[in-house]
Amino acid sequence: MTKQYKYQLTENDIPKTWYNIQADLGFDLPPLLHPETKEPTILPPPLFAEALNEQEFSKEREIEIPDPVREIYSMWRPTPLIRARRLEKALDTPAHIYYKYEGGSPSGSHKPNTAVAQAFYAKQAGLNRLATETGAGQWGSALAFACGLMDMDCKVFMVRASYRQKPYRRVLMETLDAEVLPSPSAETPMGQAFLEQDPEHPGSLGIAISEAVFTAGTNDDTNYALGSVLNHVLMHQTVVGLEAQQQFEMADEYPDVLIGCIGGGSNFSGLVLPFVREKIVDGKDMRVIAVEPTAAPTLTEGLYAFDYGDTAQAAPIAKMFTLGHTFIPAPIHAGGLRYHGMAPIVSGLYDHGIIEAVAVAQLPVFEAAVQFARTEGIIPAPESAHAVKVAIDEALKAKEEGTEKVIAFNLSGHGHFDLAAYDAFKKGELEDFGFPAEEIEQAKQILPEVELA
Amino acid sequence: MTKQYKYQLTENDIPKTWYNIQADLGFDLPPLLHPETKEPTILPPPLFAEALNEQEFSKEREIEIPDPVREIYSMWRPTPLIRARRLEKALDTPAHIYYKYEGGSPSGSHKPNTAVAQAFYAKQAGLNRLATETGAGQWGSALAFACGLMDMDCKVFMVRASYRQKPYRRVLMETLDAEVLPSPSAETPMGQAFLEQDPEHPGSLGIAISEAVFTAGTNDDTNYALGSVLNHVLMHQTVVGLEAQQQFEMADEYPDVLIGCIGGGSNFSGLVLPFVREKIVDGKDMRVIAVEPTAAPTLTEGLYAFDYGDTAQAAPIAKMFTLGHTFIPAPIHAGGLRYHGMAPIVSGLYDHGIIEAVAVAQLPVFEAAVQFARTEGIIPAPESAHAVKVAIDEALKAKEEGTEKVIAFNLSGHGHFDLAAYDAFKKGELEDFGFPAEEIEQAKQILPEVELA
Repeated sequence: MTKQYKYQLTENDIPKTWYNIQADLGFDLPPLLHPETKEPTILPPPLFAEALNEQEFSKEREIEIPDPVREIYSMWRPTPLIRARRLEKALDTPAHIYYKYEGGSPSGSHKPNTAVAQAFYAKQAGLNRLATETGAGQWGSALAFACGLMDMDCKVFMVRASYRQKPYRRVLMETLDAEVLPSPSAETPMGQAFLEQDPEHPGSLGIAISEAVFTAGTNDDTNYALGSVLNHVLMHQTVVGLEAQQQFEMADEYPDVLIGCIGGGSNFSGLVLPFVREKIVDGKDMRVIAVEPTAAPTLTEGLYAFDYGDTAQAAPIAKMFTLGHTFIPAPIHAGGLRYHGMAPIVSGLYDHGIIEAVAVAQLPVFEAAVQFARTEGIIPAPESAHAVKVAIDEALKAKEEGTEKVIAFNLSGHGHFDLAAYDAFKKGELEDFGFPAEEIEQAKQILPEVELA
Repeated sequence: MTKQYKYQLTENDIPKTWYNIQADLGFDLPPLLHPETKEPTILPPPLFAEALNEQEFSKEREIEIPDPVREIYSMWRPTPLIRARRLEKALDTPAHIYYKYEGGSPSGSHKPNTAVAQAFYAKQAGLNRLATETGAGQWGSALAFACGLMDMDCKVFMVRASYRQKPYRRVLMETLDAEVLPSPSAETPMGQAFLEQDPEHPGSLGIAISEAVFTAGTNDDTNYALGSVLNHVLMHQTVVGLEAQQQFEMADEYPDVLIGCIGGGSNFSGLVLPFVREKIVDGKDMRVIAVEPTAAPTLTEGLYAFDYGDTAQAAPIAKMFTLGHTFIPAPIHAGGLRYHGMAPIVSGLYDHGIIEAVAVAQLPVFEAAVQFARTEGIIPAPESAHAVKVAIDEALKAKEEGTEKVIAFNLSGHGHFDLAAYDAFKKGELEDFGFPAEEIEQAKQILPEVELA
């Protein structure tokens, strides 16, 4: 063929190990703290399999991917690295734009990379159910898929606003045999408390986490699964970046700018961490940009402080960039980015100046997504569209500068479940929401008091 | 890995030529007839590019795939051949079940295989717009995608019932910059006539074809594109089967039973035609099963006769299995299978006893689809679920017989846009419709009178 568009690996190229950046950070991550005692803790054992706890704190550089997990990965992995030649042409830019496309997985996003691993370890530890929360539904769908293949039950607390707005995500999970409840629910004390305040409470990711954690904590047969934030979750996602490294070798290029959208941090980390290693260890000159929504600008506007992972203060306290655990972001369509905190690893990298961050608003994000769809033919999930927006901005900058920059981003999911949002955008009915300065200032005041020994 | 699930080819394995079964049929296809004169005709030149007309009647065995088409194919091709080991286990069958998964394409089905080719040839011929019809939306989405990449306009007449029931398919097409009209529309004389009968007329594929054909016939800059039925469309789909042949070599197996769902015939033919060649030419012993809905049982209950391709008698007359061009199938969710006729190639193969056919009802189809989703993790499109149903039936038969049969089917699309149907199924609200004996008897009476010289 005259022009190469796709860099495709074979099944044998699926990484045999995940990459654990804790081996190379050059700094220690602050401890996790127990939400009540505020003493250093591991992941609460009733919630997580021992193997995941080991991974959470391990400093081994490479951790073996179990065969059954690689076998399931092989359903959709390796994923393609695609050169966005038509987008380059439309932008008339000298930049080379690449995207790693994770939307071809059975649930349509990168989330199964960790869902399958978490279900495997829980099953191995003798559990027969996983409980979790989901916002927009990408994570819940991925865990329902993984539990189905592992022959486990799955219970999903779905933020009530999404449960109503995105019934098809719910149906997808139910068709895969998961039990889906709107959160806040009547099943947990924290859910009941919020429902008493407001029987139609729209819920939030922070509340749904509290409910899932409670469910796992009070049922012996049930573990908890989290779709982002934790170290082991980010590590499972590194298959994305490890494949991309092989694919850039095939393309005989190396990225100058790496971009990922960021909510809890897992898809961003999945792509960038193996490259960040080369930046830290080999001194590679490369910009790494985390893109967050102005509606939840955790890195660009948050504090680097100890805070609860959830609203009801049931999850451990972590040192992270946070807007405050009481902050509830505006209902942007990128539901996966509506989180008050940030993965401790990503927070540490940002604090050390190894990565950059930028916040973008909903309307320009959708504008970029439509341009991408019309040139590349793939409709991005609203979350992933944040990365598209900044990739386009960087490509236009390269055009101004006349530099042949290599730009790569993670197209972490397709937007087939988000077409109502695209319809609203087309009709001019989409709100921008913008930057909630006052709410953030208030929420930042409410952080736990922590004194480390 | 201990067990292989997926057989993955690389970009270089994407076929360089399509396979044209007209070289090997061993019988001549009856001529196409002009809808008015009833004389033998080529595809009407104002509707189709010359290159497609040549392909339609060619007897060359291999026809080169143009480089720009292969480049776009490479976005999602080669597609995986997956061994359904978890389904085998759930069925406790000695059969080996394989599926070729076409749902990973940007529009979620096999349809872009021909959409990209048709847009390429139209663009090459200097056209700047394609008009088409769509039922459930798979074909319209694929053509919108293809036109976007070829920098062409796209106009889609969408069956009004689907336009209402599946707004997200419409939004998908519009986001890809296509113009989408509910059919019958006020834009064409045939549309106007149906709207006069009933302003809320639900439409049908046959009516929508008439409107798209009229639009292409009366606009110099516009060609028509058809998503199935015609010889060149089926030929473009043979990339599916040509890849599968390579993949079965990798798996060191050969299918005993090949299965595809069938509406116009394109996804079935895409998988089976290269294997049918081996059956005809090399005498391979293999069953090839076309699965149709009981609501539109064209092969099992239709006549092999000359009939119009559309309701308004604007499209050419072809000899095919038909229920009569006035037959309007019940609104089953497998919208892509609601067609009164059948591809002439498929009809000829069935008439010669080279392939078999079976009709299945909506409820058992959804039951099979849910079982597949819960074991294999992929939710099938309702069309593809017809193939799943018969694959499961054959696997259970193999269990009874105690034979290690190799069964393969085309999983032509995912069901992410069909979750309302899965929801209805779960709630027990899905109708079975069954077999419309009386309507078929009536419609079969109304066929054109044709006397061949």
